[in-house]
Amino acid sequence: MSWGRLEGKVSAERAGWVRWLGSEVPEVAHMSPAHQSMGETADEEEEGDDSELILRFQDLVDRRCVDNVRMLVVDSVQHAKAGHPGMALGMAEVGYILYRHVMRYNPNNPKWFNRDRFVLSAGHGCLLQYVCLHLTGFSSVQIEDLQNLCKLGSRTPGHPENVVTDGVEATTGPLGQGVANAVGLALAEAHLAARFNKPDAVVVDHRTYCIMGDGCAMEGISHEAASLAAHWKLNKLILIYDDNHNTIDGDTNLTFTEDISARFKALGWNTITVDNVHGDMREFKNALNSAFMETEKPNFIRVKTLIGKLSRKEGTSRAHHGAFDDDDLKEMKQKVKWENREPFHVVPTVYREMQIQTEYGEALEKDWYSTLNYFQTRYPQEAVEFKILLNGGLVPGWENSLPIWSKSDPVDATRGYSEKCLDKLAKVLPGMIGGSADLASSNKAYLHEYQDFSQPNSPWGRNIRYGVREHAMAAISNGLALHGSGLIPFAATFLIFSDYMKNSIRLSALSHAGVIYILTHDSIGLGEDGPTHQPVEQLAGLRAIPRLLVFRPADGNETAGAYMMAIQNRGGPSVIALSRQKVAANLEGTSANEVKRGGYIISDNSSGGGELPEIILIGTGSELCLCEGSAEKLRKEGRRVRVVSLVCWRVFDGESEEYKEFVLPKRVRKRVSVEAGSPQGWREYVGEEGVVIGVEDFGASGAYLDTFRKFGFTIENVTNIARALLD
Amino acid sequence: MSWGRLEGKVSAERAGWVRWLGSEVPEVAHMSPAHQSMGETADEEEEGDDSELILRFQDLVDRRCVDNVRMLVVDSVQHAKAGHPGMALGMAEVGYILYRHVMRYNPNNPKWFNRDRFVLSAGHGCLLQYVCLHLTGFSSVQIEDLQNLCKLGSRTPGHPENVVTDGVEATTGPLGQGVANAVGLALAEAHLAARFNKPDAVVVDHRTYCIMGDGCAMEGISHEAASLAAHWKLNKLILIYDDNHNTIDGDTNLTFTEDISARFKALGWNTITVDNVHGDMREFKNALNSAFMETEKPNFIRVKTLIGKLSRKEGTSRAHHGAFDDDDLKEMKQKVKWENREPFHVVPTVYREMQIQTEYGEALEKDWYSTLNYFQTRYPQEAVEFKILLNGGLVPGWENSLPIWSKSDPVDATRGYSEKCLDKLAKVLPGMIGGSADLASSNKAYLHEYQDFSQPNSPWGRNIRYGVREHAMAAISNGLALHGSGLIPFAATFLIFSDYMKNSIRLSALSHAGVIYILTHDSIGLGEDGPTHQPVEQLAGLRAIPRLLVFRPADGNETAGAYMMAIQNRGGPSVIALSRQKVAANLEGTSANEVKRGGYIISDNSSGGGELPEIILIGTGSELCLCEGSAEKLRKEGRRVRVVSLVCWRVFDGESEEYKEFVLPKRVRKRVSVEAGSPQGWREYVGEEGVVIGVEDFGASGAYLDTFRKFGFTIENVTNIARALLD
Repeated sequence: MSWGRLEGKVSAERAGWVRWLGSEVPEVAHMSPAHQSMGETADEEEEGDDSELILRFQDLVDRRCVDNVRMLVVDSVQHAKAGHPGMALGMAEVGYILYRHVMRYNPNNPKWFNRDRFVLSAGHGCLLQYVCLHLTGFSSVQIEDLQNLCKLGSRTPGHPENVVTDGVEATTGPLGQGVANAVGLALAEAHLAARFNKPDAVVVDHRTYCIMGDGCAMEGISHEAASLAAHWKLNKLILIYDDNHNTIDGDTNLTFTEDISARFKALGWNTITVDNVHGDMREFKNALNSAFMETEKPNFIRVKTLIGKLSRKEGTSRAHHGAFDDDDLKEMKQKVKWENREPFHVVPTVYREMQIQTEYGEALEKDWYSTLNYFQTRYPQEAVEFKILLNGGLVPGWENSLPIWSKSDPVDATRGYSEKCLDKLAKVLPGMIGGSADLASSNKAYLHEYQDFSQPNSPWGRNIRYGVREHAMAAISNGLALHGSGLIPFAATFLIFSDYMKNSIRLSALSHAGVIYILTHDSIGLGEDGPTHQPVEQLAGLRAIPRLLVFRPADGNETAGAYMMAIQNRGGPSVIALSRQKVAANLEGTSANEVKRGGYIISDNSSGGGELPEIILIGTGSELCLCEGSAEKLRKEGRRVRVVSLVCWRVFDGESEEYKEFVLPKRVRKRVSVEAGSPQGWREYVGEEGVVIGVEDFGASGAYLDTFRKFGFTIENVTNIARALLD
Repeated sequence: MSWGRLEGKVSAERAGWVRWLGSEVPEVAHMSPAHQSMGETADEEEEGDDSELILRFQDLVDRRCVDNVRMLVVDSVQHAKAGHPGMALGMAEVGYILYRHVMRYNPNNPKWFNRDRFVLSAGHGCLLQYVCLHLTGFSSVQIEDLQNLCKLGSRTPGHPENVVTDGVEATTGPLGQGVANAVGLALAEAHLAARFNKPDAVVVDHRTYCIMGDGCAMEGISHEAASLAAHWKLNKLILIYDDNHNTIDGDTNLTFTEDISARFKALGWNTITVDNVHGDMREFKNALNSAFMETEKPNFIRVKTLIGKLSRKEGTSRAHHGAFDDDDLKEMKQKVKWENREPFHVVPTVYREMQIQTEYGEALEKDWYSTLNYFQTRYPQEAVEFKILLNGGLVPGWENSLPIWSKSDPVDATRGYSEKCLDKLAKVLPGMIGGSADLASSNKAYLHEYQDFSQPNSPWGRNIRYGVREHAMAAISNGLALHGSGLIPFAATFLIFSDYMKNSIRLSALSHAGVIYILTHDSIGLGEDGPTHQPVEQLAGLRAIPRLLVFRPADGNETAGAYMMAIQNRGGPSVIALSRQKVAANLEGTSANEVKRGGYIISDNSSGGGELPEIILIGTGSELCLCEGSAEKLRKEGRRVRVVSLVCWRVFDGESEEYKEFVLPKRVRKRVSVEAGSPQGWREYVGEEGVVIGVEDFGASGAYLDTFRKFGFTIENVTNIARALLD
């Protein structure tokens, strides 16, 4: 790893420190320029006899900066009368060291591609991050923002949100998610580095840092992600565990007594313990240096801290959240000689110290652009692809790669159509990458012309094997998307197991992560595996997630249409629900393009003009064919019947009132919806007089057609219900 | 542990074996009675020079029984052309030994209280369990049932369902769930043993066995549960890991390379490895004996097996599911000399051998009843409570313990009312037990007059500390409920984190587990913590789960009513959604009793008789007060307004059409629903002309009232919308 070098005007700024620190300053300070205290960058001339003195001076500087960090934390919480000071105080040294001495980033361009990524999995500690962002010069967090902590519309919400605050990489708070996001970010780096780096042009090279607390450590999702991180040999991932021995309910002895370091070691991590970060920050710096030497394993740094450090509540769970009482506040300020300072005071030299990183980051970014220019000249072909990715991953005309089906083509399950779409898309979209939670062959979610991602063998591989770890899969996919490098992650499992990763899917939507969830075996139609595997209420539950697009295509062309939409939707996630069983036909009236409207007319034998159909049959997915089959029968009986595919509710809901009235005219009161899932929500579309054919109970183990028959999903039953409405 | 002793007619049955085994029989067989091969029970007189010969004879017998188990597995899969033979073949020895030699149960009374519990977390291997249930004499699985594997309506569904097949303790299939169920069962045993056992009367004493596969081992939920099992020192839990090195997608090297034994050791488990179960079954028996000696740690027995043992697909992931081709079938039958037998053949001596356990179980049950009688005589007071539990946990008049609130009582958050209900209920219901996922103080879900469950200090404690492990909490709660001992488990967290445990909540409903989910902070009204913590779509998602009752009470009395229903609902789960913020009032018109109808009229100023209200405002939870407030305003303007509380949709939906028409008369077309959650599903109740006031996007960090205002949850906005409808 190449660290930049900062000299010149920095030494002049030391003067500020000297004035402030006064008699505490060792003599050497007067003569020394700042240096990167991380061993990797120490200049030889600085390593003479003075080196220990230089380090001691830096220790003092560090200590005072940390004091200021803590005071800002305290002032913010007191001002807001809300927030979580406990972790922010306990981890102040860690946050400070990362932002001041370790991480590579440019506050003036928070999205600089090659920056180190930092994820605060213990999201309730966001105040620490806000303070560090402020002190290092991110324009996204001003003093006023700290004063607006947890206020409506502020840039400092109660948990960090990447779409609200520049400098925040992932939206966290639900515990454990951030660990998996970080694994995704590190995976993205390892993958892209393998694809693009050249011996003479390293264009992808950063570390991923993550802070987790006891809560994250207990959540299953972090375990799943940790197991994968080691399996994938993500050595540039540094997971810092805030071991403060407290959770909300009390001492961790209440619930959490495992040997966590041994556990991570068993998973294949490099484990390091820092015992006394409050007493000696160098210990943590040394731990990081040791982690940087690791070439194969991800790094787990356990840092023992005191939650609520400084406060009377120090070391107890009472420090976790909430403001401090006046006496406690006074004492804290006394302890760091802050009594005479106004709230939200920042010592100017602290700004200057922490903004050393700003200049450093700018230099790094400049360097990176030079490398990029060289890369472009020397490796023009690779550069084209790299540029596509850096621009978001889409290429003009990519939709044209999608297959088109006609009525005469052999029928397949929609998961089969999906497989063909994926293979085509992967060839034109260099960012397509993803995999399944041990169901690649069942989900048919595998890019056949590409290898598996595997270190050291094939890190360029674009198929990811997640094992049976749905929750981590989704959150890692969020990390891949939030890496911001044009990766288009897909994540596949059975629709029923979306339940295992529900919170991560929600976070995809909340954090604008364009993950494509490929969820097959999408109804009781999966048959023999029975009710434990048959989704019923999952479509309803997913449709209720704000902003998420849920597609349930009916045949080949609708599947292609769903991919068109899902890939276009780079600012948010999509679900594509697919059948296990073969659908009955490639329908005449379906169209990939019409999927863009969410709902559209498949067939109608009313004569047009003023004449409306007598009845509308509305279906999705594998049941659309039942609607068509029933419509044919009814038409033979002289009825005017329209069939509508409602492939994505949310997209349809967003269409104009005129279009919606065109598809579902209010005057046509007789409507039947047919979907092998929960009826919840269908009333919106069938109206008061309509009939919803759905599944109100759990499914049952049995052959597909038997199960469908039991629950009324036959052309005959749909037709009978329609007839009853018409009579 | 006291093993019973079986002698007498057993020795006669050996004759059958001798005939069948022919020349393979060691001489000793002719003179030896059967004996429990587990070391604990060997009679001294059997331990002479002959003991090795006796063991060798038993080995032969065991081998032939296992052959028959495998043949039934193969025949069933071939017949069904479906199912999962791989695990069933690979674990045939393990299943056989557990059912034949180890577990204590009575096939003639599968619900005998003191039986060992067995959970097949690798539920796809259910065929192994079905075959063992059949051979040991459970009437629930006849040969016809094996022939109906995976057929609609059969007692042998594709994954085991406790409500379908006697002898199955838990509904499994979604991976990892069973491990946590087993932890719950073992927890129930440890807790009840501590509460009721006396030195001279041991009335609660069984082990819990669980088989898991690689998939279970990878899922986060199993990790969470495993961490808790060790923390709780559940030494009578025996987790058997089918280490077959294959998952659906291929060799475990693809995704799963951690040192799992070291991981379990780090969590605090006793770990044992069995290398050659196919070659030497005694190795597994010895492992069990060693596990039985463990007094503190739960036991992890890693058994290396060959998936699909016998088949050509042996040892490969292709063996996981699906039938065999003819050649393979033929070869398998040859290998075990089964060529001349009809499909589904059972050698009569195999039946007799495996049903030794039936007689043994009957004797054990009889013994247990003797102990129970003694217990009742000697400890009458404890026996009363024990009987209540064994009869399901309810006592006449328990509802009367619930507090009643009046309008003049100080207002509280509904979570505060809930806390008072819980404390009252715990005193009258000895089975009330539960806890929170590290949010006891926030959820206010803590039984203040009882201790924490903690071994060895206070295993009788009725508060369970789950740590930050929602998914395991829910599945462990399922285990507590499915223990069938009158425990009434509650599980608490924030409503948003129901997403983390969604599949387990679903399984509560599918498996008839009467868990009470206490989900607080139930809307954007939680305020500062922001959108990551503010539920929006969770109510909709939970309401869509079949059979689950979701209550959202509005004040104290409705909270009491929700508990009445949830506790009465012993055959299924309930959710009680509760507010973080104080509600505006204890309403005049609410009533605990009316909650039983799911929806009812809170207030109405139309004169009754033929006169209907002009408008109906429908609310739930903290928004019901907004409806009341708005109604007051409108009434002052001369409007006839009804307010309806729709506290539980599913219960209301189940009321008579007459009652529903009484509450929501079709002629009243102007309706407004007010709920701070997803609008999905509300159209059913407000009709086409009504207005749904809901939350269509994610929430926002801010003070509660600011957030409520932003999203339109004010009396003013509700009133304006109502006025617009009325005009």
